[in-house]
Amino acid sequence: MSSNSFGKLFKLTSFGESHGLAIGGIIDGCPANIELNFNKIQEELNNRRPGQSKITTSRNEADKVEFLSGIFEGKTLGTPIGFIIKNKDQKSKDYGNLKEVYRPSHADYTYQHKYGIRDFRGGGRQSARETACRVVAGAIAKQVISSFNITINAFTSQIGNIKIQSNLNEYDRKDIYKSIVRCPDNTTETKMIEAIEMVKQKGDSLGGIVSCQIKNMPVGIGEPVFEKLQAQLAQAMLTINAVKGFDYGLGFEGVSKKGSEYNDEFKAIDDEIITTTNNSGGIQGGISNGSTINLRVLFKPTSTISKQQETVNSKGENVLLKAAGRHDPCVVPRAVPIVEAMAAMVILDYLLIRFGYAKFQQAN
Amino acid sequence: MSSNSFGKLFKLTSFGESHGLAIGGIIDGCPANIELNFNKIQEELNNRRPGQSKITTSRNEADKVEFLSGIFEGKTLGTPIGFIIKNKDQKSKDYGNLKEVYRPSHADYTYQHKYGIRDFRGGGRQSARETACRVVAGAIAKQVISSFNITINAFTSQIGNIKIQSNLNEYDRKDIYKSIVRCPDNTTETKMIEAIEMVKQKGDSLGGIVSCQIKNMPVGIGEPVFEKLQAQLAQAMLTINAVKGFDYGLGFEGVSKKGSEYNDEFKAIDDEIITTTNNSGGIQGGISNGSTINLRVLFKPTSTISKQQETVNSKGENVLLKAAGRHDPCVVPRAVPIVEAMAAMVILDYLLIRFGYAKFQQAN
Amino acid sequence: MSSNSFGKLFKLTSFGESHGLAIGGIIDGCPANIELNFNKIQEELNNRRPGQSKITTSRNEADKVEFLSGIFEGKTLGTPIGFIIKNKDQKSKDYGNLKEVYRPSHADYTYQHKYGIRDFRGGGRQSARETACRVVAGAIAKQVISSFNITINAFTSQIGNIKIQSNLNEYDRKDIYKSIVRCPDNTTETKMIEAIEMVKQKGDSLGGIVSCQIKNMPVGIGEPVFEKLQAQLAQAMLTINAVKGFDYGLGFEGVSKKGSEYNDEFKAIDDEIITTTNNSGGIQGGISNGSTINLRVLFKPTSTISKQQETVNSKGENVLLKAAGRHDPCVVPRAVPIVEAMAAMVILDYLLIRFGYAKFQQAN
Amino acid sequence: MSSNSFGKLFKLTSFGESHGLAIGGIIDGCPANIELNFNKIQEELNNRRPGQSKITTSRNEADKVEFLSGIFEGKTLGTPIGFIIKNKDQKSKDYGNLKEVYRPSHADYTYQHKYGIRDFRGGGRQSARETACRVVAGAIAKQVISSFNITINAFTSQIGNIKIQSNLNEYDRKDIYKSIVRCPDNTTETKMIEAIEMVKQKGDSLGGIVSCQIKNMPVGIGEPVFEKLQAQLAQAMLTINAVKGFDYGLGFEGVSKKGSEYNDEFKAIDDEIITTTNNSGGIQGGISNGSTINLRVLFKPTSTISKQQETVNSKGENVLLKAAGRHDPCVVPRAVPIVEAMAAMVILDYLLIRFGYAKFQQAN
Repeated sequence: MSSNSFGKLFKLTSFGESHGLAIGGIIDGCPANIELNFNKIQEELNNRRPGQSKITTSRNEADKVEFLSGIFEGKTLGTPIGFIIKNKDQKSKDYGNLKEVYRPSHADYTYQHKYGIRDFRGGGRQSARETACRVVAGAIAKQVISSFNITINAFTSQIGNIKIQSNLNEYDRKDIYKSIVRCPDNTTETKMIEAIEMVKQKGDSLGGIVSCQIKNMPVGIGEPVFEKLQAQLAQAMLTINAVKGFDYGLGFEGVSKKGSEYNDEFKAIDDEIITTTNNSGGIQGGISNGSTINLRVLFKPTSTISKQQETVNSKGENVLLKAAGRHDPCVVPRAVPIVEAMAAMVILDYLLIRFGYAKFQQAN
Repeated sequence: MSSNSFGKLFKLTSFGESHGLAIGGIIDGCPANIELNFNKIQEELNNRRPGQSKITTSRNEADKVEFLSGIFEGKTLGTPIGFIIKNKDQKSKDYGNLKEVYRPSHADYTYQHKYGIRDFRGGGRQSARETACRVVAGAIAKQVISSFNITINAFTSQIGNIKIQSNLNEYDRKDIYKSIVRCPDNTTETKMIEAIEMVKQKGDSLGGIVSCQIKNMPVGIGEPVFEKLQAQLAQAMLTINAVKGFDYGLGFEGVSKKGSEYNDEFKAIDDEIITTTNNSGGIQGGISNGSTINLRVLFKPTSTISKQQETVNSKGENVLLKAAGRHDPCVVPRAVPIVEAMAAMVILDYLLIRFGYAKFQQAN
Repeated sequence: MSSNSFGKLFKLTSFGESHGLAIGGIIDGCPANIELNFNKIQEELNNRRPGQSKITTSRNEADKVEFLSGIFEGKTLGTPIGFIIKNKDQKSKDYGNLKEVYRPSHADYTYQHKYGIRDFRGGGRQSARETACRVVAGAIAKQVISSFNITINAFTSQIGNIKIQSNLNEYDRKDIYKSIVRCPDNTTETKMIEAIEMVKQKGDSLGGIVSCQIKNMPVGIGEPVFEKLQAQLAQAMLTINAVKGFDYGLGFEGVSKKGSEYNDEFKAIDDEIITTTNNSGGIQGGISNGSTINLRVLFKPTSTISKQQETVNSKGENVLLKAAGRHDPCVVPRAVPIVEAMAAMVILDYLLIRFGYAKFQQAN
Repeated sequence: MSSNSFGKLFKLTSFGESHGLAIGGIIDGCPANIELNFNKIQEELNNRRPGQSKITTSRNEADKVEFLSGIFEGKTLGTPIGFIIKNKDQKSKDYGNLKEVYRPSHADYTYQHKYGIRDFRGGGRQSARETACRVVAGAIAKQVISSFNITINAFTSQIGNIKIQSNLNEYDRKDIYKSIVRCPDNTTETKMIEAIEMVKQKGDSLGGIVSCQIKNMPVGIGEPVFEKLQAQLAQAMLTINAVKGFDYGLGFEGVSKKGSEYNDEFKAIDDEIITTTNNSGGIQGGISNGSTINLRVLFKPTSTISKQQETVNSKGENVLLKAAGRHDPCVVPRAVPIVEAMAAMVILDYLLIRFGYAKFQQAN
């Protein structure tokens, strides 16, 4: 089934296996005549790329994006934007031993069973390497929506049992990205890094939570009933590798609240209608209400660990596995720009439906 | 935007406002030549319908479904199944006072802003009344997939801070549906009902969690990358009114686990490959692995409460609101069949993609 | 497969068998807050309905549309518009003998083979009765686009070998619909009616061509590459029962022209860029160029004839068939409003993509 | 809008401007574990490529396809197949003068108006160069459906007013492709070539008709009502550059036939049900009936001609244009493999819906 596309009007279709010649994608439905800042696109890729810090995998990929179409003299043409990112540091030999073994909690077994064939090198298509393409599309989406003044900031709010405590609304984007763990709170950040380094030493891994805030949303974005804004955001996030959960507003932590505590009362101040609280997370009935959309994305601990595990090979024999390949002890820090990218694509899609292409294409 | 359809091959499109003449839908893409059990369909509707017990709203609707097409001599034709459910107990006058007032944490304000018009009677299209159509489609989906032996059981696992404790895998469907709160554990059930009755008395409301288990899944169902099985399930659930979160496998409760604790090791037993644990929740890389899919759906407390609240009217004036209409003090019990219906539609869709229509249409 | 929906943003999903309880549909994605003229909708249905003149089938259906949702106090809500048209004059007994016989050039055999079951009464879902739903949706689409001043007029340009000769651009809508054969040219009209009456007497049937003109198109409507305006129009028309061909601009009649004769040269007159000819039919590269879009839709002769034919029954035996049911000796006159409806839906869809919903919903 | 994808389950998304770095595409939804014959894919591209004979444009492109993903050890992985075709012979200077001029009956003006920007080099995205990607996808589709024994053969049946006369069913694929004009009838072929050479000398161009036959179709392929097989084929063909019309079965040439002459009577012979004629063109009610599907695709004369034409520049001034770039005097011969490719993609898509992926993936 064709299942490698995301979006309705602004649509990314991606391709590529982890250790093939290249990964890449086509961004279809981008408004025309928009000047792109290519440095900013590459910067987002750099925020996701492997090998960027001591707490990420040592696989080293420049993740340099090459655009092949859809852009002319620095501006979008309105035609599909084709791009590729070549795979350089392939070291397939690291993965040769995985040809015959199903790694626990990876998709080796399900891919093999479904397709009768798989590219076992580094996980092939199941690898999170594919998400680099989302970052490209998301970076472009962000530039397109910048005229609406909407900002999208994600950050690491929990690693293992270490949780950011302070008021989430006060952080600056700069503080997020200067932290290698993408946590804007200094004290928490230090503890998170220590925790990651500790599991790394032991050949183990950690999971955590990425929080994301979408600010300055216009009222009226989202489409009831089956395309509610939160449903598209949930789907978007659950397509990211290793994601196991999603919530927004008060989320699971508000489960024991009563209605009278939960409801966001309205207040008219001057000519504006606002809510005095934001327990709803910026969405009502699937439609943005103008408050900040805040959501959380749960990542499981990296499945690839160096510790010895019991598993099965393709002949159906019980074997022991000790993974040798390079891997992240915690995927959360590198997932932060991916969460932002997915959110940006969702938001742009709905803006296009509401306002039409003509609004985005200033020249006509 | 056309956003009232759900599904790819097996697709429900629904229509209807809470207090219009009727709600209804079209189920398109149902395999042909399948004998339907109409009693079972109605039974599922009865499990969702208002007025069924002391802890649900007193609005009384028979929710009798009438099929208009797509069925011939008791069997599906393969053509679209049109159906309607007439609205009987309308009491629009209950809602007359809502014409000018935006209820807190309802979608009155966002609908009005987005569309410039709204059917204020009982929430119109934003009302959860629409979900009856999903139950019809889900009940049919369940009958279609029954030849695969797949079972889908949802139940109430938490209301406010009252949580089911025992092993979730041991319950029987009968025990779920004989409980008016849809909790199969007797002790917990009693506490849940008490809690709901208590908030009802105080004019307040509660939220909670519906858990769902999909058993006997064949391996290989789900489509990477952007249509991962968990992503479709998440989207499906987040389209239900009042849902604020979704997780599967260990979910948010497993956030502090390490990889070595989280991974599901494989074991070969006789000719079969199984996992010794099921922390992953039955899905790997977006594809079912044959283990039970278990997921959780978080519902916020009902927004309609009788307690007085501050809000704003359509003229932008601050006003006080004390809701008079009938409403559920807790939506969770009535949401259980809706969660099952959405799950059933997702699973059938993917089975159709993998196995094709011919497989479902025995006669040809 | 779900294949009973038409459109992307403005989408009709239809249901219903010819002799079931009702046919109907859901129009999803209609802009909100638009006042509807219900008389005009019914008028379009009347232009299509059976039994309206001596040259149509004698089956008599009022084709009264009932709206169930999506409309409030005469205006669209932006929510799905559910509607039904009850089947009254069913006379299923006329069709009882068709239970076991495959009518030549009907879809009895292909439906039976594909689905293993069929509603044989009057053709069931294969009947053109379904097109009444398109007329409803098209009539609403026309009202929505009326603010753009676009007009869509179809008419009968050929019946059998009788062809309209005069300049197609000079006719008036009134002249089309006062003719029972929907041909605005008096002399040709008379000949067409005679031809139809002649084949009717002989128990035979005729085909013909419906021409359609879409005037006052804004420049820039249509989406390259795979959703070119002409491709959507072609698809739209080929979904109508009995249609066997489509062309636009000079069409098949211009096949022997040279490029220098075919090309539409541009001319700047005052501030406007126009073409001096319109051989292209108003579209270039899949995008409207501001000239009139003119297209032709070819209908085969009605398959149901009273003349005796050789055929086969469901047991695979050779039998003779003499159709008894009521039927049109020529479907072309009743197809004229259907062609208009399909064109209107296509045009509105593309306008929505280009200009967004906000533009259509004046109040917000 | 994202409009550069074709297909539902087997889906091609293409990108690329005529004179950019590369064109390419992603084929999503190809069944897994199918061994590909790469020579055959390249051969189809060679049949389309420019510069292949004296009657095509002299632009010389090797049109060498490079696959970047989705294929492993010669077999499809079931993951998206990314590919690129580099543009070599770019000679942009040929097109520099087109920066400011709108070529008659090209899409320069409509693109400029719609997007406010365009890549004027060789037509950019509006160029038929994009169709090379379709040929790649179509060639793969053909290999996937080969297990069904379905064959798809297109050929040139008319150039200008020169028309093939003999029985269309008797030709061999070899005879089609050994003819540079793709006409399997020797006498007609010679006349066609002469006609093309004559207009070429005069700086003019010709159009024509490609006929296509799809043989050995299983009964039951196609989805009523809005996704009828003929509607998808029509849409597919009308997306090809320069196409102005489509018909099937008797088509426009059968417009004056009566029902009794047109209907295909059934006959039971042994255990099989066949029709004694095939005026319907192999489809009834949108579903294949087992007879050969025969369709015709009308191409207008090439818009680029060397003869002087009146036109307008981007400042809105009247100017004269004499095109200098290289171009085909008639696009029909090179369009033959494109028509086949589009047909193959449509057929495969419907086979997948009916039979499911599992049927195509022998190994599992």
